[in-house]
Amino acid sequence: MMEKAKIEVCFSPALFPFYENREAIVVVTDILRASSAIVTAFMNGVKKIIPVGTLEEAKAYKEKGFMVAAERDGIVRDFADFGNSPYNFTAQQVSGKQIVYSTTNGTHAIHLASSGSQVLIGAYLNLTALAEHIKESGRDLLVLCAGWKNKFNLEDTLFAGALAKKVLENQQFYTICDATLGAMDLYEAAEQDMMAYIEKVAQRERLKKNNLDDVIEYCHELDHTRLIPVLDGKHLVPLQDFS
Amino acid sequence: MMEKAKIEVCFSPALFPFYENREAIVVVTDILRASSAIVTAFMNGVKKIIPVGTLEEAKAYKEKGFMVAAERDGIVRDFADFGNSPYNFTAQQVSGKQIVYSTTNGTHAIHLASSGSQVLIGAYLNLTALAEHIKESGRDLLVLCAGWKNKFNLEDTLFAGALAKKVLENQQFYTICDATLGAMDLYEAAEQDMMAYIEKVAQRERLKKNNLDDVIEYCHELDHTRLIPVLDGKHLVPLQDFS
Repeated sequence: MMEKAKIEVCFSPALFPFYENREAIVVVTDILRASSAIVTAFMNGVKKIIPVGTLEEAKAYKEKGFMVAAERDGIVRDFADFGNSPYNFTAQQVSGKQIVYSTTNGTHAIHLASSGSQVLIGAYLNLTALAEHIKESGRDLLVLCAGWKNKFNLEDTLFAGALAKKVLENQQFYTICDATLGAMDLYEAAEQDMMAYIEKVAQRERLKKNNLDDVIEYCHELDHTRLIPVLDGKHLVPLQDFS
Repeated sequence: MMEKAKIEVCFSPALFPFYENREAIVVVTDILRASSAIVTAFMNGVKKIIPVGTLEEAKAYKEKGFMVAAERDGIVRDFADFGNSPYNFTAQQVSGKQIVYSTTNGTHAIHLASSGSQVLIGAYLNLTALAEHIKESGRDLLVLCAGWKNKFNLEDTLFAGALAKKVLENQQFYTICDATLGAMDLYEAAEQDMMAYIEKVAQRERLKKNNLDDVIEYCHELDHTRLIPVLDGKHLVPLQDFS
């Protein structure tokens, strides 16, 4: 009999050391908006995404001729080609290109996660494909929520709950992780009317202040693509090309 | 008009630096079992509790003649007078005495919290008195969940949700903290049948393995006392004596 695979959820990059699991597939999620934007970019034909942690690195890439998406706290930086809204990553803009991407929370989480056996980018936009890949792998799953400046956030937690629930449909998986159980319960409370639930999250207010809240509904839409971004060294590429 | 006071919840001692608020009353909670045991001890007449972080410190106090409660991962240490079950803190054992207390998670959280304007110990056993004190103070509230070895746990989260909900009944308080909103939603999902909900938490399994799960129901009982333990320098004393 195959050994069962466990599911855990980590609510903040600052808690990652306590959950770290080198055997696990680590799914990084930053629903509003980095992981939704990255999945969108691959859907629209981007070749490679280079996630960078600091604005200095992003600027250095720009000077070398790369196309750069960079913002902090929702404000596009002046040297960047565009900000982090998924709506910026149109096929016309990104198809066939390499893009450098720097965000407040998302890229930091991606770099942290790189100790896992495989690092994937998760969003509602690729939820079903992601869950199926994990179920087929039979490996442990650790969902790393990017959070907000190391604080817990609800929108990433709800996604973690949605993913855990889907993967647990396969009897080869189990969880004894309170964070996973809590995330699933919150997702169940929210899923009937996700947009009504999301009304209250802090990130919605931050986006609204900068007129960036037009993407919230899109970022909660299911299964626009089967593509799963995977970390290949320091770059993200589509899992379908990588494996 | 009085400025409104904000409520935040911190799910792990490791996240405390991101929530730290010197203006806030910090309520430390470790429902299973440290904060429930400490509240019980005061209810039964203990004069003072000295929370210590390490077993070495606890042992040193024992050698100086103090009564010591100390365990790790649910196992009573051989030098200690008793373990951390609230049932050990009977009036006969503790009335009028000073007790040294060391636990896996609880005492670490108490020491961290000491940067707040006032540090209180919270449990269901003193929930209403605690909420009333906070409402009367008009100060910010930060609930620090002791968690489990820096991981998120459900039982402390539910208590944080219960306390936040009670305090928010007073219109002078508000929250824009996702952790607080999530904790309240989980509490609402659990409160109808708390013991059924608590069946699934990881700490229940840990206690059960050591035949220590007999306290779980007691630790979720409401309002056995009006006493609120407060940190006075390095000791806990009843708030009623302190103020």
